Amino acid sequence: MKHRIVIVGAGFAGLTVVQGLKGVDCDITVIDQRNHHLFQPLLYQVATSMLATSDIAWPIRSLLRDRKDVTTLLGKVDGVDRDAREVILRHGTRVPYDSLVIATGVRHAYFGKDHWEEYAPGLKTLEDATTIRRRLLLAFERAEMSENEAERDAQLTFAVIGAGPTGVELVGIIAELAHRILPGEFRRSDTRRAKVMLIEAGARILPAFGDKLSAYAKHALSRRGVEVRTGTPVTECTSDGIVLGEEFIPTHTVIWAAGVQASQAKDWLHAKADHAGRVIVNDDLTLPGDPSIFVLGDTAHVESDGQQVPGVAPAAKQQGSHTARTIRARLTGAEPPGRFRYRNMGNLATVGRNAAVIEYGRFQMKGWLAWWVWGIAHIYFLIGARSRLFVSLNWLWSFLSGQNSARLITQKEHSPSSGQSIEDDGFARRDRD
Amino acid sequence: MKHRIVIVGAGFAGLTVVQGLKGVDCDITVIDQRNHHLFQPLLYQVATSMLATSDIAWPIRSLLRDRKDVTTLLGKVDGVDRDAREVILRHGTRVPYDSLVIATGVRHAYFGKDHWEEYAPGLKTLEDATTIRRRLLLAFERAEMSENEAERDAQLTFAVIGAGPTGVELVGIIAELAHRILPGEFRRSDTRRAKVMLIEAGARILPAFGDKLSAYAKHALSRRGVEVRTGTPVTECTSDGIVLGEEFIPTHTVIWAAGVQASQAKDWLHAKADHAGRVIVNDDLTLPGDPSIFVLGDTAHVESDGQQVPGVAPAAKQQGSHTARTIRARLTGAEPPGRFRYRNMGNLATVGRNAAVIEYGRFQMKGWLAWWVWGIAHIYFLIGARSRLFVSLNWLWSFLSGQNSARLITQKEHSPSSGQSIEDDGFARRDRD
Repeated sequence: MKHRIVIVGAGFAGLTVVQGLKGVDCDITVIDQRNHHLFQPLLYQVATSMLATSDIAWPIRSLLRDRKDVTTLLGKVDGVDRDAREVILRHGTRVPYDSLVIATGVRHAYFGKDHWEEYAPGLKTLEDATTIRRRLLLAFERAEMSENEAERDAQLTFAVIGAGPTGVELVGIIAELAHRILPGEFRRSDTRRAKVMLIEAGARILPAFGDKLSAYAKHALSRRGVEVRTGTPVTECTSDGIVLGEEFIPTHTVIWAAGVQASQAKDWLHAKADHAGRVIVNDDLTLPGDPSIFVLGDTAHVESDGQQVPGVAPAAKQQGSHTARTIRARLTGAEPPGRFRYRNMGNLATVGRNAAVIEYGRFQMKGWLAWWVWGIAHIYFLIGARSRLFVSLNWLWSFLSGQNSARLITQKEHSPSSGQSIEDDGFARRDRD
Repeated sequence: MKHRIVIVGAGFAGLTVVQGLKGVDCDITVIDQRNHHLFQPLLYQVATSMLATSDIAWPIRSLLRDRKDVTTLLGKVDGVDRDAREVILRHGTRVPYDSLVIATGVRHAYFGKDHWEEYAPGLKTLEDATTIRRRLLLAFERAEMSENEAERDAQLTFAVIGAGPTGVELVGIIAELAHRILPGEFRRSDTRRAKVMLIEAGARILPAFGDKLSAYAKHALSRRGVEVRTGTPVTECTSDGIVLGEEFIPTHTVIWAAGVQASQAKDWLHAKADHAGRVIVNDDLTLPGDPSIFVLGDTAHVESDGQQVPGVAPAAKQQGSHTARTIRARLTGAEPPGRFRYRNMGNLATVGRNAAVIEYGRFQMKGWLAWWVWGIAHIYFLIGARSRLFVSLNWLWSFLSGQNSARLITQKEHSPSSGQSIEDDGFARRDRD
């Protein structure tokens, strides 16, 4: 019987393992709880209606169509039976493995304030993105409908909590929407008066970048009308607003970009994990005491050159190809590559239209040139020729016309069991929270 | 004070009124319960994952951006106060009018069997389309997971009820998905074994077309693997299947394309309506006894040359421009155009890839040439240069590569109030019904 490899999670890490195993004589099963691979670095563009969902997501089984050695299953993992060497899916199906790769990513975390999620959704999945998109766009619509000035101001206040790359990129586009794209479309409210806030508990924004780039990003955001608050942790989130120290800020649109928590892999494996729930693995990415199990990507805690490997796409891909090399070597009797070493491919983040920051070792770049480099790099990394073409056209169009595309309010948070009817309220308050 | 025109519904009829009033010195308010105009003739392509939602829908206020005389409101109408001449929105806002245009379309109707909607959703809105898309795609996924042959067969049975253009177009693409696009992507189940059924209570499919074209369409569908059942009304719909006469057909994916019911305009206006709830209007499209109110499009019952005007996009557009001419004439003191006359622009329907039927008076066309004419006509009528380009590229790509694009399962029917978490079950049975 062929060696059976089960890969849980079809993100960057999981799919890179599949790629790296091309031509190896084995049976591969890919399990994911969603039917699509997601290009997460551009998810904030879906959340802000610049791109459509299908611009950055592709059916997994369509990506793996030509790999006859791969079976794709849409399923939710409930556990791993390490004695029987089987992955247990919800509804009881068991999938046997000889090698198991777990790369199930992270979710946002609220540091013990889980009830904040209702008011401050995070951004990790397509559903998260369409939820945020709907809230953002409905806030502008409600401001237009409102005849009460305080209510209108609250609707036009947008707060992003957490100033890593995701928070900075989100707030940059929200400011662009409010101050440049939407003003011509509203008649009663002035969207240019919108208050767009970036809130960071730490001392500066983009802490992973150097001081200079961080200061440039802050300046670039301020020039675009973003109010940047550093050193101010949020102490309360409600349906009516947030509390920063002594100050209450009325807002109905808050986005959480402040913290993450690894998936449940540690519980499935009964494994040791760090404070964020990442499974602590050996330096070759295997589980301590069980070399048949690999944990990769954001789900894993691993060090390289004395530093923790960051939870970024290039790290996930590098771990994926390292794992594929390890498995391939074991199957062919060759020498496994051993220790995983992370090559830092640099940091990139946009801070609005025509402005970005790039850091690669000692090399630093900022401004419009960095923005174009960022755009080209992202198009290059998007999987598939078709998507590259479409995303390029979309951006080029947005850039030249000053318009964006995907501003549709569709999905509802509480949809009735019987589907939508004309009775439904596309504007109901209950949508909001 | 300027003449105030309120238009409820931004479909083909409503937006054509706005276009026709360009340059007239008046205040226009457009009210819709959704933020987007929808190109409904292509909605079945979203439901079958050939197009993305944003390919066929555009924010209304973005379409009307340059019309400074137009205010767009996202709101749900609850009634019309004809004495005060005000439209009443949910949450109490009142919008005063001098002329009122109501063009709020139709929903699917179940002829008194409303509980069927849960098992057999209809297709009128973007949400309907994404609901159907999710059910279709999940059925293939569940067949792949299932280890029980009867269950697998039930998952791979798809029934479309109603053989008008929408039903025929839906079933044509579903057959294409099952028999041509998906087979290479599944390893355990053979999607070519899928049973794709078109069920019609009447004697033949596409009854609005001539006998010959109707017979051609039936033949073309059969050749594509569709089982066409005419003269067989559905007598029961459950979560496990449908009943046709004496026969029970196990299926979990049923789509309703059999009947429509007009929106509630008749209740708002306390007006006379026909059996399908369409408001009966004068031959100039005004409400009997109230010349300041117009009812258009699918919501109106009006005759032209002794025949009821059909509920199709060209009729809605013609009624829109007729109404704009009437209002314009009244405001300028010119002679109003009087009676509305419908010019039949012909009938078009696709019956799968490379096959369509076209009827224009005595002229008839069928086959691949008709398919290309259909494609070009639809691209031409899509609003906006950008969308034309994108839809063309998308179709060209699908045609050349044999692949389609938007096969994402995202939105859920019963989403928890607190947003999605990694705990959510992308494969839960509760999604199904």
